[in-house]
Amino acid sequence: MTVSPLAPAAFPELAPVAGVTLHAYAAGLRYTGRPDLMLAVFDEGTAVGGVFTQSRCASSTVDWCRSILGGGSARAVVCNAGNANAFNGVAGDVSVHAEVDLLADALDVDAAQIFVASTGVIGEPLDDLAMAAALAELVQAPTDSWADAATAITTTDTFIKGAGASVPINSASSSTAVGGTAVGGTAVGGTAVEGTAVVGTVVGIAKGSGMIAPDMATMLGFVFTDVAVTSGACQTAIAEASDQSFNKITVDSDTSTSDTVLLFATGAIGNDPIDGPGHPDYPAFAAAVLDVCLDLSHQIVRDGEGATKFIEIRVEGAVSDTSAEIVARSIADSPLVKTAMAAEDANWGRIVMAVGKAGEPADRDRLDIFIGDEQVACAGQVHPNYSEDRANVFLKNDDIVVRVDLGMGDGSSSVWTCDLTHGYIEINAGYRS
Amino acid sequence: MTVSPLAPAAFPELAPVAGVTLHAYAAGLRYTGRPDLMLAVFDEGTAVGGVFTQSRCASSTVDWCRSILGGGSARAVVCNAGNANAFNGVAGDVSVHAEVDLLADALDVDAAQIFVASTGVIGEPLDDLAMAAALAELVQAPTDSWADAATAITTTDTFIKGAGASVPINSASSSTAVGGTAVGGTAVGGTAVEGTAVVGTVVGIAKGSGMIAPDMATMLGFVFTDVAVTSGACQTAIAEASDQSFNKITVDSDTSTSDTVLLFATGAIGNDPIDGPGHPDYPAFAAAVLDVCLDLSHQIVRDGEGATKFIEIRVEGAVSDTSAEIVARSIADSPLVKTAMAAEDANWGRIVMAVGKAGEPADRDRLDIFIGDEQVACAGQVHPNYSEDRANVFLKNDDIVVRVDLGMGDGSSSVWTCDLTHGYIEINAGYRS
Repeated sequence: MTVSPLAPAAFPELAPVAGVTLHAYAAGLRYTGRPDLMLAVFDEGTAVGGVFTQSRCASSTVDWCRSILGGGSARAVVCNAGNANAFNGVAGDVSVHAEVDLLADALDVDAAQIFVASTGVIGEPLDDLAMAAALAELVQAPTDSWADAATAITTTDTFIKGAGASVPINSASSSTAVGGTAVGGTAVGGTAVEGTAVVGTVVGIAKGSGMIAPDMATMLGFVFTDVAVTSGACQTAIAEASDQSFNKITVDSDTSTSDTVLLFATGAIGNDPIDGPGHPDYPAFAAAVLDVCLDLSHQIVRDGEGATKFIEIRVEGAVSDTSAEIVARSIADSPLVKTAMAAEDANWGRIVMAVGKAGEPADRDRLDIFIGDEQVACAGQVHPNYSEDRANVFLKNDDIVVRVDLGMGDGSSSVWTCDLTHGYIEINAGYRS
Repeated sequence: MTVSPLAPAAFPELAPVAGVTLHAYAAGLRYTGRPDLMLAVFDEGTAVGGVFTQSRCASSTVDWCRSILGGGSARAVVCNAGNANAFNGVAGDVSVHAEVDLLADALDVDAAQIFVASTGVIGEPLDDLAMAAALAELVQAPTDSWADAATAITTTDTFIKGAGASVPINSASSSTAVGGTAVGGTAVGGTAVEGTAVVGTVVGIAKGSGMIAPDMATMLGFVFTDVAVTSGACQTAIAEASDQSFNKITVDSDTSTSDTVLLFATGAIGNDPIDGPGHPDYPAFAAAVLDVCLDLSHQIVRDGEGATKFIEIRVEGAVSDTSAEIVARSIADSPLVKTAMAAEDANWGRIVMAVGKAGEPADRDRLDIFIGDEQVACAGQVHPNYSEDRANVFLKNDDIVVRVDLGMGDGSSSVWTCDLTHGYIEINAGYRS
């Protein structure tokens, strides 16, 4: 598999997160020569929030995570790559129960605190015996490598995805630190910063290379922090961050049966727990979670199947932010816009078309369109100074910004996408043949 | 341009329609060596109905047609290929007025009874002087060739599209025939059929080869009949027929700024005018209009950019017909389903995904999926007798049927689409370069 030309230069340096113990294991269930099982074990008292696919045919693992999320606490999350355990009828539910029961015994925790994700082929029952043997090995295979964990959850990804951020915490009560088994044995947190009691850590890993390719892919994101946060505040933070990141990317407009984003907060740095948006530390915490989610979501677009361009569609002047997002998504999902970008062709008529088909309030005679800094259209017609040559030169960049001002109000939103190329057809019309 | 492998063997034999005089002219405004202007002139008393794009950035021609449709009568429709006259600001509206004023003088009819359609490049102002000269030639260029008329409205189409049907009329009052200038001077109608007073004719021509490719394409349909029908009944018939045909096809999910379907009824056969669904002749008339629209709409899919497969997505067992259509469209628009069809790969996991993302009521454990006659999935899991080999053999056909039974109710709907191939990328990422 060729690495995407839009891939970051390297996997980032990521700090350990106190209260999280990682495991990775090459079980060979579908892939060989690399880890395909990931387990993160959490210290007692870890809070959790999560969001899941909107699919009406969600996988058994998504059903399971939804059913236990209300408990608000987590002791582990396990993920296998190669089999999505989706559309396997009741057998899929049985497989999930077998997994969590086995791990509950091995880890001596409550099964209803073990989250599960699966990604890979749809409609092939899991081999429960092989999985049981693999899980027994997995719990014996701790690692301090975020890269190994990130590798273990990939399928068609051409590069592994991770991101980190730090959180200045002002209201830390350092004497009450809980947990503290840091990854690799290196304790973190507690770094003094001017005017700050302590600094927390947020680390995330993700996988995805189409918005979905349900035989072999899906979008998964796991975010970990050592900051103390209640489950309610975790839920608010991860839902808001996902709305602004994972829910604003599109590769092919398709939606997985298995999409899952989970945030785990161990509380190991012992701060006064952040209990909601009103807490003085919430804004910094939420900003760090959003940073990590945005970074991961952009990496997924950069690994979009066949992608050669990373494209931000920025819509301004809409009647509301929601309206702006609908228009931006209409442009970002348009096969005609995406093929024009692949051709490095400033075919702005297709952008007009996509604005029009969105069905949101728009007025031809107020519409401005920019490709990079070049104003293409102004007040419903081509701008008098527009230079297609300049626009086409800009489009030779890997990273493209298309900006549309509807001139209707103050709403704005960005959606991130990639171009549509022969590579997409090659991957999706060819790989099972 | 290579002709689509899914093209019909030949353009059909189409009867003239009494009361309609066709014109076609090779104006060379963009294309050379073939007609690019079409005019149909109607006898006095011709009724009209029409439906238009849902785009919020509709072209000036669509705005004009909408503004005069309420008058209910038509004396002409003119169409140019090569320039869509869309997104030209107020200049676009001025061009339309110039066209209809010139034709109103030349034909001695009311400008508000002249319908206009344009297809081609967006955002390039029409050359009004060149258009005026061309229209003056056009009115002097009558033809009895439906093929010439069908050619004159095409852009990226790889074959011309026409269809015809006859309408048995029981309540004809033959002594009151009006109009009667038949195409090519050959009077039609009046053929005796057992138990039928007279037979009317419905003929349609259309263009389109993507659902839209706004620089060079759009979807236009013009349907003509010699049956006497009130404008209200024309509107009902064309709206219903379009909903069941042109609104149920998709090539790339994109929507033109210019889509237009118009039905003109000259009344030349002199039947008792059909004044609505309650009229005894309405069902036969509406069925003929639907036949023609279905045939034309399927031809557009068969000319889909890069298409190698004509695919019917049939959804049954939905909670309503509307719900079934939404699910069918979700499958038909999915790039992953369309690339699997291109690969002749029975990748049914992608169909499950597309059912799930539609957001309509569905239950994994009641879902049945068929590819041709092969039952793939049953009650939420792979069917025990499913043979991927048999399914893949069926997928080697040009015409494919995918059937999904949701098991939720009695709603059903079909949507027609084509596969997504390298040819689509080639056409849309390459043609302006």
